[in-house]
Amino acid sequence: MIKTIDLNSDLGEGFGQWRMGNDKAMLEIVSSANIACGFHAGDPAGILQTLNSAKKNNVVIGAHVSYPDLVGFGRRKMDIASHELTADVIYQIAALQGLAKTVNTKVSYIKPHGALYNTIANDEYQAMAVIDGILAIDPCLTLVGLAGSNILRLAQEKGLKTIAEAFADRAYTSKGELVSRRESGSVLHNADLVARRMLQLVTEGGVESIDGKFTPIQADSICVHGDSPGSVEMAREVKTVLEQSGITIRSFICP
Amino acid sequence: MIKTIDLNSDLGEGFGQWRMGNDKAMLEIVSSANIACGFHAGDPAGILQTLNSAKKNNVVIGAHVSYPDLVGFGRRKMDIASHELTADVIYQIAALQGLAKTVNTKVSYIKPHGALYNTIANDEYQAMAVIDGILAIDPCLTLVGLAGSNILRLAQEKGLKTIAEAFADRAYTSKGELVSRRESGSVLHNADLVARRMLQLVTEGGVESIDGKFTPIQADSICVHGDSPGSVEMAREVKTVLEQSGITIRSFICP
Amino acid sequence: MIKTIDLNSDLGEGFGQWRMGNDKAMLEIVSSANIACGFHAGDPAGILQTLNSAKKNNVVIGAHVSYPDLVGFGRRKMDIASHELTADVIYQIAALQGLAKTVNTKVSYIKPHGALYNTIANDEYQAMAVIDGILAIDPCLTLVGLAGSNILRLAQEKGLKTIAEAFADRAYTSKGELVSRRESGSVLHNADLVARRMLQLVTEGGVESIDGKFTPIQADSICVHGDSPGSVEMAREVKTVLEQSGITIRSFICP
Amino acid sequence: MIKTIDLNSDLGEGFGQWRMGNDKAMLEIVSSANIACGFHAGDPAGILQTLNSAKKNNVVIGAHVSYPDLVGFGRRKMDIASHELTADVIYQIAALQGLAKTVNTKVSYIKPHGALYNTIANDEYQAMAVIDGILAIDPCLTLVGLAGSNILRLAQEKGLKTIAEAFADRAYTSKGELVSRRESGSVLHNADLVARRMLQLVTEGGVESIDGKFTPIQADSICVHGDSPGSVEMAREVKTVLEQSGITIRSFICP
Repeated sequence: MIKTIDLNSDLGEGFGQWRMGNDKAMLEIVSSANIACGFHAGDPAGILQTLNSAKKNNVVIGAHVSYPDLVGFGRRKMDIASHELTADVIYQIAALQGLAKTVNTKVSYIKPHGALYNTIANDEYQAMAVIDGILAIDPCLTLVGLAGSNILRLAQEKGLKTIAEAFADRAYTSKGELVSRRESGSVLHNADLVARRMLQLVTEGGVESIDGKFTPIQADSICVHGDSPGSVEMAREVKTVLEQSGITIRSFICP
Repeated sequence: MIKTIDLNSDLGEGFGQWRMGNDKAMLEIVSSANIACGFHAGDPAGILQTLNSAKKNNVVIGAHVSYPDLVGFGRRKMDIASHELTADVIYQIAALQGLAKTVNTKVSYIKPHGALYNTIANDEYQAMAVIDGILAIDPCLTLVGLAGSNILRLAQEKGLKTIAEAFADRAYTSKGELVSRRESGSVLHNADLVARRMLQLVTEGGVESIDGKFTPIQADSICVHGDSPGSVEMAREVKTVLEQSGITIRSFICP
Repeated sequence: MIKTIDLNSDLGEGFGQWRMGNDKAMLEIVSSANIACGFHAGDPAGILQTLNSAKKNNVVIGAHVSYPDLVGFGRRKMDIASHELTADVIYQIAALQGLAKTVNTKVSYIKPHGALYNTIANDEYQAMAVIDGILAIDPCLTLVGLAGSNILRLAQEKGLKTIAEAFADRAYTSKGELVSRRESGSVLHNADLVARRMLQLVTEGGVESIDGKFTPIQADSICVHGDSPGSVEMAREVKTVLEQSGITIRSFICP
Repeated sequence: MIKTIDLNSDLGEGFGQWRMGNDKAMLEIVSSANIACGFHAGDPAGILQTLNSAKKNNVVIGAHVSYPDLVGFGRRKMDIASHELTADVIYQIAALQGLAKTVNTKVSYIKPHGALYNTIANDEYQAMAVIDGILAIDPCLTLVGLAGSNILRLAQEKGLKTIAEAFADRAYTSKGELVSRRESGSVLHNADLVARRMLQLVTEGGVESIDGKFTPIQADSICVHGDSPGSVEMAREVKTVLEQSGITIRSFICP
């Protein structure tokens, strides 16, 4: 039996003249691209360029929807009303869908960004607003969320397909939760170690927790970052180690 | 033979807590609603509300695309690069299409807004950028433009359906051009006079110019405004006079 | 001995073409104007106009600083980093000070707006960030905050002058706290009742709580609203009743 | 007699999470920093950081005021009304002044940015709006503009001090005008050549034009760029060559 796993990354996060990360390098590594939709990053012309590059690299496209907060890069939790969040989600998905259509590709999944991603992992109110938005625009879209979080169960109950993701460069507690960024050791910087952990995740269904215990994590996608030269190198190492172990990097979406 | 004419108006031009015009009143008068897409006005939740109201009133929906300029309400000409303008047009149309889909309606036409509308009437460079955007997202969309302007001919050459529009409350030169707003007498304030002129437009194919000559104007849609109590009253008067003369107010789009 | 009280109102809350409330009417009623600084409302040209009108009416000017959230009108709590909030506060106060200077007037106090106002009433972290911003730009500025809230004590400890304010149209609990807007009866709509309550506030130092007990509230300013015809009427009634009872409406700032 | 010249550069042009250029390197090279004010780039917290660094490096600070156009980076000409432009200029200068004050430094000059810079070189209408804004907030501020352009004469007539600047990496016509960026050879990439040209500018009062003639250019400041590794290297080379020839790099503002 052939093992496969998806590698996803946040891309298209420039805005106007500003660049963020190395999209070109990452599009040669990942199987899925979470593309900014204009609310935390991404202007229409820039998004179009990223969509084109993703298509050329046969990378599956997801909408990286966010709170409306350019200056905060979508990283600040907002107490947004439910009907506003639902409409914001629809607007962003739709805009990306339309841009994708013009370059003969399409949006296959939704991955909320930044503070919205973290908030909906636990906040049912905002989670339902996001789910409602996705259902309204296209119930066939897949939702990518944090492995083990409530949003995945909620979305499934509402009939959405979901994909659980793990973070390559993050430490986990023995309960399978992310160690808070405020804690020492929460972010891993050694590419070799990270690659070995992701191999363990795919082959054994879990990783070693920050306190040294094997912790089961059910994940069908691994998030890798590309915003520094070091992170691109780490992503490449994860891919190489997985492929050398006979694992195929492939999107969770059937082509 | 039954004469018909379309009445269109700019709607959904609030933003967040700010309101603009009387959408409710105008949706009972017009057959077509040019709905803001977020670049000069319109936030997602507000757009959704306007789309819902338009649908309930069986009003046909158009995308009122604009330069990205909230503080200037899209009324300031911008020297925007062609590829940026094309992407901005696609983004706005797509976002409105997606929101429309979630309330079981759709976008049928495109009417550029404000300074963009005026610029593309004569500037082939920006006109082509807008046309390219429409063609890319959906070549079946109709473009509404100023009667007699170059953009209509250009769009037709590229295969787009076009609709020429006249402005109910504006004076025309004997060449069939709008009298500049800087000139005295350019904007008409008498509802009776405006209604009689529009009746003449529909029945005789033209209006009296500012210097007193009959001027042919070929228009399939009349733009009426609703941003003041007086303008709503004028729009209602135009509709009443046309209908009393046996003319049917109906969109240029087949239902 | 002559009793005096300040009446303040949120003004200059238009943006570009959008209007909000009746600034003209309110500037004839209040002694202090909380003027938007561009983050929840207010574009430079519009702010300048409001500053001019305030000056003509001898109304004292305050900076109505906010989270950066135009589409949400500053009404959505944001988890903003302390150094960002401090810088945002400085930027807004400074911009208003500069505009004020060009019309020969000045900013005398700071009143945080909307969700920021509510958040800092209890959240020491954000409260300190606001206080730090005010101290950095001008330690002689006065901070206006909710009567009975922690921010006033905190600000005083840091050396800022503070003014406690009461809300004319809000019900209070017997502990002197605002009844949540989610509760029935939290907002008062009867202008006579509101005016009598504010007279009681000024003459007796408290109002009747929602459960019928006299509740002490120490306040040196009363906030009145002007965003609907009814609210303008109510503000006028408050002023009339207070003045007829021999109370002078006057800013807490010495002219 | 000691020759001196000012080197200025556009700095603080990040926004939120986005960076632009190498501020740290450039602040060790230049004598004047044109700092973004939030309209084309620069968020309050980021501006504060740049102001701090400028102060530490004893670099004189200018306000780099712009059209309100983040997504276009202020590079798109806008048909903005005169009173709006004046208010926008005041707002930006004031905001930067206030932030500067909190780190014990100050704004000494104004240099309009991008499309606004180019437009006011010739457009008297917008030029006067900018001049009016500067005069309103502080008539002691110096205006930096294109050597040979009308704005400098206009500003002087209105009583403003002005400084003419030359661009290190641009070719000039024999009339002393910049060769349009659309022309081949308009931008110079050879650091040695550029440094020699700037030495000629300072010592002989002109440079060789694109068609090989000596062209007088009166300039008291040289603009160098820092948005690529190559441009930082070029700026450093200009400084080194000038200093080795006995020329002192010093702001036009007396410390």
